[in-house]
Amino acid sequence: MSKKLTKRSEDYSKWYNELVIKADLAENSAVRGMMVIKPYGYAIWEKMQAELDRMFKETGHQNAYFPLFIPKSFFSKEASHVEGFAKECAVVTHYRLKNDETGKGIVVDESAKLEEELIVRPTSETIIWDTYKNWVQSYRDLPLLINQWANVVRWEMRTRLFLRTAEFLWQEGHTAHATYEEALEEAEKMHEVYTRFAEDFMAIPIIKGVKTENERFAGALETFTIEALMQDGKALQAGTSHFLGQNFAKAFDVKFATKEGGLDYVWATSWGVTTRLIGALIMTHSDDAGLVLPPNLAPFQVVIVPIYKNEEQLNQITAKVNELSKELRAVGISVKYDDRTTHKPGWKFAEYELKGVPVRLAMGPRDLENKSIEVARRDTLKKEIISLENLTSFVKNLLKEIQENLFARAKSFRDSHVTEVDTFEEFKEVLEVKGGFISAHWDGTTETEKKIKELTKATLRCIPLNSKEEVGTCVYSGKVSNRRVLFAKAY
Amino acid sequence: MSKKLTKRSEDYSKWYNELVIKADLAENSAVRGMMVIKPYGYAIWEKMQAELDRMFKETGHQNAYFPLFIPKSFFSKEASHVEGFAKECAVVTHYRLKNDETGKGIVVDESAKLEEELIVRPTSETIIWDTYKNWVQSYRDLPLLINQWANVVRWEMRTRLFLRTAEFLWQEGHTAHATYEEALEEAEKMHEVYTRFAEDFMAIPIIKGVKTENERFAGALETFTIEALMQDGKALQAGTSHFLGQNFAKAFDVKFATKEGGLDYVWATSWGVTTRLIGALIMTHSDDAGLVLPPNLAPFQVVIVPIYKNEEQLNQITAKVNELSKELRAVGISVKYDDRTTHKPGWKFAEYELKGVPVRLAMGPRDLENKSIEVARRDTLKKEIISLENLTSFVKNLLKEIQENLFARAKSFRDSHVTEVDTFEEFKEVLEVKGGFISAHWDGTTETEKKIKELTKATLRCIPLNSKEEVGTCVYSGKVSNRRVLFAKAY
Repeated sequence: MSKKLTKRSEDYSKWYNELVIKADLAENSAVRGMMVIKPYGYAIWEKMQAELDRMFKETGHQNAYFPLFIPKSFFSKEASHVEGFAKECAVVTHYRLKNDETGKGIVVDESAKLEEELIVRPTSETIIWDTYKNWVQSYRDLPLLINQWANVVRWEMRTRLFLRTAEFLWQEGHTAHATYEEALEEAEKMHEVYTRFAEDFMAIPIIKGVKTENERFAGALETFTIEALMQDGKALQAGTSHFLGQNFAKAFDVKFATKEGGLDYVWATSWGVTTRLIGALIMTHSDDAGLVLPPNLAPFQVVIVPIYKNEEQLNQITAKVNELSKELRAVGISVKYDDRTTHKPGWKFAEYELKGVPVRLAMGPRDLENKSIEVARRDTLKKEIISLENLTSFVKNLLKEIQENLFARAKSFRDSHVTEVDTFEEFKEVLEVKGGFISAHWDGTTETEKKIKELTKATLRCIPLNSKEEVGTCVYSGKVSNRRVLFAKAY
Repeated sequence: MSKKLTKRSEDYSKWYNELVIKADLAENSAVRGMMVIKPYGYAIWEKMQAELDRMFKETGHQNAYFPLFIPKSFFSKEASHVEGFAKECAVVTHYRLKNDETGKGIVVDESAKLEEELIVRPTSETIIWDTYKNWVQSYRDLPLLINQWANVVRWEMRTRLFLRTAEFLWQEGHTAHATYEEALEEAEKMHEVYTRFAEDFMAIPIIKGVKTENERFAGALETFTIEALMQDGKALQAGTSHFLGQNFAKAFDVKFATKEGGLDYVWATSWGVTTRLIGALIMTHSDDAGLVLPPNLAPFQVVIVPIYKNEEQLNQITAKVNELSKELRAVGISVKYDDRTTHKPGWKFAEYELKGVPVRLAMGPRDLENKSIEVARRDTLKKEIISLENLTSFVKNLLKEIQENLFARAKSFRDSHVTEVDTFEEFKEVLEVKGGFISAHWDGTTETEKKIKELTKATLRCIPLNSKEEVGTCVYSGKVSNRRVLFAKAY
């Protein structure tokens, strides 16, 4: 397979699809809309999981596991929830196959029909709150701070690898609290955890905000979101944290004896991020040569390629590389040495460029003699020869620099793509010509929000938390507004 | 809820069920046969996962993720495989719910019927081999050494928490090789990895063996098993590694260009362990006071309980405990300090005994004065007062000693419950009165194996790898036999 990618400027969407396949991240499976996450893609997810899991535990959360299936009737208990999810559910109706008596092969055994259909979880609020009912009696049982790593299924009609798939992997936090304030604080805390993860590990600058009523999670009173901007000027919702009020507690009758001796419904939050983050990672940093991975999430941060003419040279280089690798690993740097004799150095260079390995080291006989090594950084594609003497500290600093550079580059792009507009003409023009976030006044109604979406395909991404009060008029209706909100076309 | 458990000698099965619930490991959910794994139980699974994952990676494996659903037709492709799994499959037939027009609430939308039904994976050989077909062209693409951490569904009729549940968590390794020898070696290697994990981490002595044709995995040429013995004398299959020959490669047409220029089918293995291991862990070590956890898998190895009469005392003890905890953590020991003022020390002692924490430390004002601390070990329930001076090294050694003691205790029990018998009368008597493994001659036929099971409920657990040649006559048929095999009643 050719490693050559379509250029982003030619067809961004095609570039993305090709890159996911060629960099060995994921592929479509035999099941419509479901992907196979290949080892290299999964290794990125494992890195993400490890960091997030650490952050969740540091903030007092524990992991647990709840059933894959949810009784159909549970979905009816929270009215807005069912509206949000019923349309895209995989439904289990039978529990047995059999050999067809007329020789047609394997068929569903009609005698094994379930009394009540089971839904493959699209999210777990309902089954979890049905469980919490038995766990919470008193304020002493609160808070419950629980997270689940799981797969979920949503029957999406149009799917794209990582970005929108019928099955995806995620984590879903579900917490229960004694007070309104504590639950709200928890939702905000996890919003902040997601922000730190996106910025410090994914090197993706994000905008923190809240969703409008129209874009809120089905069943939430407030949805906190982190919004990222992709290179093609489209926004991507990278994580959400929901303040659920007492909606699920009421739907599943979860009451607790308060400290004061009363009885009250429990306050709830839920929050999640998914394998879609891998799509965001790709689309934020990568270039026409392939993937560009931030060192903090790269499956391996450094690859070393030997350049040799004969076995003796290879052996000499390998001996030196083993020594260097040991030193690099000792300071926590992950290293891969590719000494395969089946592929040429040029092929390997292209391969690791495509796979976004942050730093590539190449060593030939001349380097061995000069006690030097060639260092290539993936973010800028720049190369230089450095002395072996300072290699470890050089690489350590370089990885830090690459991580920071990727963030700075993405932030500069993002900042230059937030455009204030004051008329609807301008709105449409910026959206079509420049893209990115459009900062505009909005009258606060769902009606206007929907109308703008209908006319432009832009959605109201969020009301930024840091937006300042400012008197203005709605870009569409002309009605009064007291702050700007962000619109964009979005993934 | 009372912490008092039914005694094992009274009703082992009841003891187990109560212990799983009371120690907060798991509980039944609203979905028949599916469990909720509670945080404490899940923390044990996380410990197991971490060690196994490390061992898999050290032996060259990578993780990946394959779809939850498998097209029904895939199951027909490998004949014995479908026989093994068709009877217990959850079947997805529809992909949408809707509001019933006659007001009956949410119903399945009949217009959203799938053309081909999807099966919730009971195991992933079929979907994975359908994928490998595209990954393997040449011997250069081999071996593929891939593992998946996932949930699977098997519609079991009789379920028990951890031991047999309709959904369980597991890992499934699926490897592809160029030669018979290499694949067989891989299956044996993973058999050894499971053995080391069971013995070194779970402290469960196991017997390594192979399954008879009758008990083999559906589609395997050889199934390697590790068999453990529970305290009630019943065996438990703790992990299996399968040599699949070319069966799946043929079923899914996975051929490769050999080094020699030919074309051949790929050789395969698969291997897995599940959350059932938690059941094995419980039933091997625990006692009438509750869970007993080996230090190498305990969510926390040490709990510290303060004993105080007033806040001033608590503050003094806490200051000292924080110092000690820091020292313990510095040498890699996990510590929990339970300074809750809502529960009395006696309550906490019972709680951590029930939860099997390996070492409990208790500190009161007298201890503080004497620079001493009370140390209680969970395995023997013995207590002693030791000087604070040597605490860290004392606890470190004690944890090692507990780990070894649990293994030695279980091994001594197991060894005394392998009984050689030479007549069928003896066979039945030992099975009923003593239990455990019965070492007996067998004529090698499935017919005899099935007959013995029918008459005694004992299954042929394995042909031990270390069994020596020995001339004898089959305990049931009287026919000639050249080695003993192991029978037992089993979970």
